Amino acid sequence: MITVLRIGHRISRDKRITTHVALVARAFGADNILIDSIDKKIEETINSTCNRFGGKFKIETGIDKRKVIKEWNGTIVHLTMYGDKLEKSIKKINKEKNLLIVVGAEKVPPYIYESADLNISIGNQPHSEVAALAIFLDRFLEGKWINRKFNGKIQILPSDKGKKVKSKVK
Amino acid sequence: MITVLRIGHRISRDKRITTHVALVARAFGADNILIDSIDKKIEETINSTCNRFGGKFKIETGIDKRKVIKEWNGTIVHLTMYGDKLEKSIKKINKEKNLLIVVGAEKVPPYIYESADLNISIGNQPHSEVAALAIFLDRFLEGKWINRKFNGKIQILPSDKGKKVKSKVK
Repeated sequence: MITVLRIGHRISRDKRITTHVALVARAFGADNILIDSIDKKIEETINSTCNRFGGKFKIETGIDKRKVIKEWNGTIVHLTMYGDKLEKSIKKINKEKNLLIVVGAEKVPPYIYESADLNISIGNQPHSEVAALAIFLDRFLEGKWINRKFNGKIQILPSDKGKKVKSKVK
Repeated sequence: MITVLRIGHRISRDKRITTHVALVARAFGADNILIDSIDKKIEETINSTCNRFGGKFKIETGIDKRKVIKEWNGTIVHLTMYGDKLEKSIKKINKEKNLLIVVGAEKVPPYIYESADLNISIGNQPHSEVAALAIFLDRFLEGKWINRKFNGKIQILPSDKGKKVKSKVK
């Protein structure tokens, strides 16, 4: 089980970035996302995507992040530009255990660095938690997202020109 | 030379996503980004990052996207969830030529699909142009971003706990 924990979400400022984090979590193979602030709008957006495009991804907002971290039964990874090298760190993760991936917004409190089993950087340059999560999941799941089936009501078929959409929606 | 062309940028709605697109372009190995709408704020943000963290990445906003596409001397790739498979498409790109990577916001006009030499999907699920660009550059440059040197005034050193920052700024 792979869970993404999005912390420091501010509804007005972060709504689109957090939506992208959630969509990336779903598309690249996580099972669910937990978001610290209550945000019904983002729940609706993600649930609507799941409803149309398939899969069993779950979203929950307004969770107590300290409690989630404290009670986590498995490995906790924190993605940060200050973290240790990706290739080296990823080998240390036991794939048999549940994995919690913590993804912060701008300021991350020190206890997150301390509580994580591994602080991992996707390069040490400033970029994006959306990209960091995608690259991390890509490496961790060895690129398997590319063949993942979601069996949604809407399926997009690969096409070099134009749009090929297979829809079970009447 | 790798250029990212960000189209459909709406200043208020997209500022953070477009900033992430630009930071990903820089961190994952593109040379510059062109943005269709004029946005001085985003120019400042990215120039400030380049000034502190190094590298030669350039940003230009308020460009004429039709002109850029029409006059492009090289290959044009458009990243879209409707596009063709990544592994198959990426092999078709001539690495000796200049590359223009078009990254849209929500609605992309049909002429973009038609003008692109390749419409490429990073999976056919909805997710994020930020993630799509990161994964595309990762595959296209064969993961070389990870060892790229930027020689900035500020350098973040990999660290498992806490933050290690080497700064030439007084």
